[in-house]
Amino acid sequence: MWAQRELSLTGRPRGFHLVSEEVADGLPELDRLEIGLLHVFMRHTSASLTLNENAATAVLHDFRSWFDAAVPEDAPYWTHRSEGPDDMPAHIKTSLLGSSVTLPVAQGRLALGTWQGIYLCEHREQGGPRTLLVTAWGEERRGG
Amino acid sequence: MWAQRELSLTGRPRGFHLVSEEVADGLPELDRLEIGLLHVFMRHTSASLTLNENAATAVLHDFRSWFDAAVPEDAPYWTHRSEGPDDMPAHIKTSLLGSSVTLPVAQGRLALGTWQGIYLCEHREQGGPRTLLVTAWGEERRGG
Amino acid sequence: MWAQRELSLTGRPRGFHLVSEEVADGLPELDRLEIGLLHVFMRHTSASLTLNENAATAVLHDFRSWFDAAVPEDAPYWTHRSEGPDDMPAHIKTSLLGSSVTLPVAQGRLALGTWQGIYLCEHREQGGPRTLLVTAWGEERRGG
Repeated sequence: MWAQRELSLTGRPRGFHLVSEEVADGLPELDRLEIGLLHVFMRHTSASLTLNENAATAVLHDFRSWFDAAVPEDAPYWTHRSEGPDDMPAHIKTSLLGSSVTLPVAQGRLALGTWQGIYLCEHREQGGPRTLLVTAWGEERRGG
Repeated sequence: MWAQRELSLTGRPRGFHLVSEEVADGLPELDRLEIGLLHVFMRHTSASLTLNENAATAVLHDFRSWFDAAVPEDAPYWTHRSEGPDDMPAHIKTSLLGSSVTLPVAQGRLALGTWQGIYLCEHREQGGPRTLLVTAWGEERRGG
Repeated sequence: MWAQRELSLTGRPRGFHLVSEEVADGLPELDRLEIGLLHVFMRHTSASLTLNENAATAVLHDFRSWFDAAVPEDAPYWTHRSEGPDDMPAHIKTSLLGSSVTLPVAQGRLALGTWQGIYLCEHREQGGPRTLLVTAWGEERRGG
């Protein structure tokens, strides 16, 4: 079984945001998989996806702090400055975290660990809505 | 063909550890794939997986040194401190390296490069046993 | 439908290089997929793959600057020095960026965002040719 859909996530402020439910709800065909995978793909180069702690909002806050310190806007070596000071750091952060996550599916549900959630990592000040392309595939559940 | 299993890796000390054989041995169904893939998924948010050099143990040691320097425990910006000084850095390191690796399978074996091995990246002092969910799928080999 | 091929990329200088066309042209079977995925896998531990901006060459340049600053060759903590000063940083950069990208396929084409391209990230001075193993799978298109 294969299913593929485009999902649009509303614009978020710069930072890290939990979107697990939005993603899972966006592809109801997940229900039909006995064993499978879900590929969640970000179609942009200044926002990314990762998995991390889904409970403490302080974790989301600290992600922003570390990434802003590690990839400074005022580094002397940036030459690509035409799209604003947050643009080139956004590209680097995107590649550090990655443009997709691939998640196991078991018995119709995402088989994440208890504390894992999907983060939308918005690296621009005004990133606007973001488009995901989500693809699920696997063995179908037997009726009953 | 689809196969999915949970594997438990015994607790390791903080640092980087080669687990290629444990992972490959954990899913004997790999043998049956002519062309396929193996998805290895870590169900935790303070340990991660990556591929890197499988020969020199100095490389594993230097991975720890770089990550500890790049994500310092005593950074002034951490606000999530309730689970210990190694906790928030462990979350960042997990997302930098990623929660899964997807590996090609050819003729019943992982088709890694000569020098590639799977690293378990344990970012906590007392991480304890770690659970992987491994999923293999692909075209079955013809009998003979 | 499954297809798997080894692709050899000619040696590039240290730095970041767009290889989207070479990769897509290397697996003509992509044409036949209605919905599917493409897994592009680097069989080395000192070169990696990522997705990022495909338009401005200044972005490729700035990627090199950031990674060279973040993973310095002269850090005091390196113990694995036998293969040259660019070797251990190359391993770290490889794991930060990752050894593979998984890309959605729709109607016979890679379904990337407008600005997304595949980067070959060459972290060695003399990396030489690099081998990729590319695997595509999915639902076949109906004739017409």
